[in-house]
Amino acid sequence: MLRALVFDAYGTLFDVHSVQARCEALWPGRGAQLSQLWRTKQLEYTWQRSLMRRYAPFSQVTEDALLFSCELMGLRIDKKEKQTVLDEYRRLALYPDVVPAMKKLKSAKCAILTNGSPDMIEPLVAQSGLKFDAVLSVDALRVFKPAPEVYQLAVDRLQTPKEEIGFVSSNCWDALGAKSFGFTVYWINRAGAPVDRLGFALDKIVKSLDEILP
Amino acid sequence: MLRALVFDAYGTLFDVHSVQARCEALWPGRGAQLSQLWRTKQLEYTWQRSLMRRYAPFSQVTEDALLFSCELMGLRIDKKEKQTVLDEYRRLALYPDVVPAMKKLKSAKCAILTNGSPDMIEPLVAQSGLKFDAVLSVDALRVFKPAPEVYQLAVDRLQTPKEEIGFVSSNCWDALGAKSFGFTVYWINRAGAPVDRLGFALDKIVKSLDEILP
Repeated sequence: MLRALVFDAYGTLFDVHSVQARCEALWPGRGAQLSQLWRTKQLEYTWQRSLMRRYAPFSQVTEDALLFSCELMGLRIDKKEKQTVLDEYRRLALYPDVVPAMKKLKSAKCAILTNGSPDMIEPLVAQSGLKFDAVLSVDALRVFKPAPEVYQLAVDRLQTPKEEIGFVSSNCWDALGAKSFGFTVYWINRAGAPVDRLGFALDKIVKSLDEILP
Repeated sequence: MLRALVFDAYGTLFDVHSVQARCEALWPGRGAQLSQLWRTKQLEYTWQRSLMRRYAPFSQVTEDALLFSCELMGLRIDKKEKQTVLDEYRRLALYPDVVPAMKKLKSAKCAILTNGSPDMIEPLVAQSGLKFDAVLSVDALRVFKPAPEVYQLAVDRLQTPKEEIGFVSSNCWDALGAKSFGFTVYWINRAGAPVDRLGFALDKIVKSLDEILP
């Protein structure tokens, strides 16, 4: 019996590729590629920095990944453009299935567990209109997902045993990290991607957030 | 004064994309894309498994990444084809600058420090004709690069202080991980890529292995 649901934020509730329109406006014809590359590097940097034991807040990692991506693609970006694009990360769009699903979830304890540093995630959640019992950031631990201590943070802060926590992510590696830790996991596979091969199986694979509800 | 040179293997001495021809023969028109995706997933899995504390040998990770990549690209792969492609990883081509550079390096202590598990790296080095004073695998530690304990392995096994070790890699994040640990690092930037933004600077950026020599 699950007493709490813990959600990943970026890519799960919030569409990280909603920055694409802004990128496209600044660099016509390159927005989609930049958005994809930026996200890929952002995640790589979280894993590499965690392993190097050189944590930096997600806001820093996100900026670094943007600058690298622009350089790789040969796109010039000045200080003002950089700020314009980074500001988009504080007002990412919710996926269309999020609001209807969250309305039905009122009975369960609901939290966010995110790589996002407080300076990024707090304004984002505030402007979304969504309400959570807790918004937990890896920043408290200075290591990124999928390190097991990150998932332990939800156990500690929600004071709920891991056996009673359902974890919801669209990032397959994040869902599998949570499974390896001991949560019951739901992978929101909106894109119809294959399951990552990391030695664990997901508990439930769904196409949208509504399907995780009883 | 550097008393030992430590080389990364995959992507630095051995061209991981020499599997491309075999992939192309099996799946015409898809070889380059498969080779790129396979390498990307292979590295992602090393980082994710390390953070999850679910190490698996590089041979396993490499197979998992191949199967994921085929599935994502909609390519059917049977057991024999899988083995054919994986066998290529045990006879990857050397980059053309490697043999001339290694001949000039006879005076220094030379070692390999690799993510590769012994079942992969030992046959690969044997068939290359190259000679090293040591071939060190992360498999002894059950964690992948860029964890600092991996670089410490070279210090311990070569009995050489880190201040006297030069580390050579074409993988920028690996060179930066080695820099974060304390080695003098050379990044072989054959592709003319931008420097990764991980909070450290490289000691020397060169286009080919010859340029690291005195």
